[in-house]
Amino acid sequence: MQKILRFDTPGRSTLDITRDIAGAVSEAGVETGLCHVFIRHTSASLMICENADPDVRADVERWMAQAVPDGDPMFVHDMEGPDDMPGHIRSILTGMDLTVPITDGTLNLGTWQGIYLYEHRSAPHAREVVVTLVNAAGA
Amino acid sequence: MQKILRFDTPGRSTLDITRDIAGAVSEAGVETGLCHVFIRHTSASLMICENADPDVRADVERWMAQAVPDGDPMFVHDMEGPDDMPGHIRSILTGMDLTVPITDGTLNLGTWQGIYLYEHRSAPHAREVVVTLVNAAGA
Amino acid sequence: MQKILRFDTPGRSTLDITRDIAGAVSEAGVETGLCHVFIRHTSASLMICENADPDVRADVERWMAQAVPDGDPMFVHDMEGPDDMPGHIRSILTGMDLTVPITDGTLNLGTWQGIYLYEHRSAPHAREVVVTLVNAAGA
Repeated sequence: MQKILRFDTPGRSTLDITRDIAGAVSEAGVETGLCHVFIRHTSASLMICENADPDVRADVERWMAQAVPDGDPMFVHDMEGPDDMPGHIRSILTGMDLTVPITDGTLNLGTWQGIYLYEHRSAPHAREVVVTLVNAAGA
Repeated sequence: MQKILRFDTPGRSTLDITRDIAGAVSEAGVETGLCHVFIRHTSASLMICENADPDVRADVERWMAQAVPDGDPMFVHDMEGPDDMPGHIRSILTGMDLTVPITDGTLNLGTWQGIYLYEHRSAPHAREVVVTLVNAAGA
Repeated sequence: MQKILRFDTPGRSTLDITRDIAGAVSEAGVETGLCHVFIRHTSASLMICENADPDVRADVERWMAQAVPDGDPMFVHDMEGPDDMPGHIRSILTGMDLTVPITDGTLNLGTWQGIYLYEHRSAPHAREVVVTLVNAAGA
């Protein structure tokens, strides 16, 4: 009822992991409950986002790049490069965990919702995501 | 132990749904546990906010309107209008799910905390919220 | 399986509460499940952040101070001072609840992840955090 998923990212990008999470749910056989998703890192995050038009994620990235600019001279912590500190702040803003309800044995996402792993570092990284399933009370 | 609530929003605004969530908790009879709230959309979100002075939510809206401006020419995705892409980004920043502890059969919110549905689109929308209740371990 | 922790903050700062949360987990004896952490306030928040270099948290604070400036004349709600409204917005951006998986009886955080209470008000405050533990399905 808990599973670790591993993803290799190509560097800064959003990766649709909805199918991987849904797979863990259908394997587990929880009918009514919660699916908790957690990323074990501080410069990659999880986000629910519109899943139909890739321009949406590109625009989210444009906004992030402007709101938390790489190489901002204000940042003291830059040991791993200009994308180091922005990676941490973007992860805090989008979040490192999320929980989706399970109904009738499947993720109860809205039609336009997808679950994305958001890689904030420029270089490729290996990322670990922990999925934990919980029964609703009385289920 | 899972319930769908439906809300009609008048367009961009914050809607206090604390009482609706609390109602689902008291119906269910969970004594100690968690109440998970999830909105099945990507341009409306959930937020815990100060519940006493309406100016707080108005100021949150002022900040959002400035941080993620409607009609920003940077955005490519604008099929549904100038508030389309800002709706997605505001939802990501505030979050589409939240979880509140249940203690002694009621939501264990702080005195000044309310649960709000935050509609980010200009036009009225029908929104669905899924409430799932879970028992604490040993409860 | 639910516990209230109390923290006195010295005013605006980040407080590492990982050990306190881990202590609640080991007391409870949950082997596989979830640890939910909730702060009962609207001007202090919870955040997972890099735990090795204190400059990271200082840079997060620099970014917040610039993105949500104290005393911004746009804010109407300033009854408790120039840090009042920024405290609410910073709390919404970072979040008032988070959930971490429990694996083999301990918090399954990544190597570089710590759990922080982020005090956003200038003055010292007493803050309450509710920790709730839940078993994974089948555990």
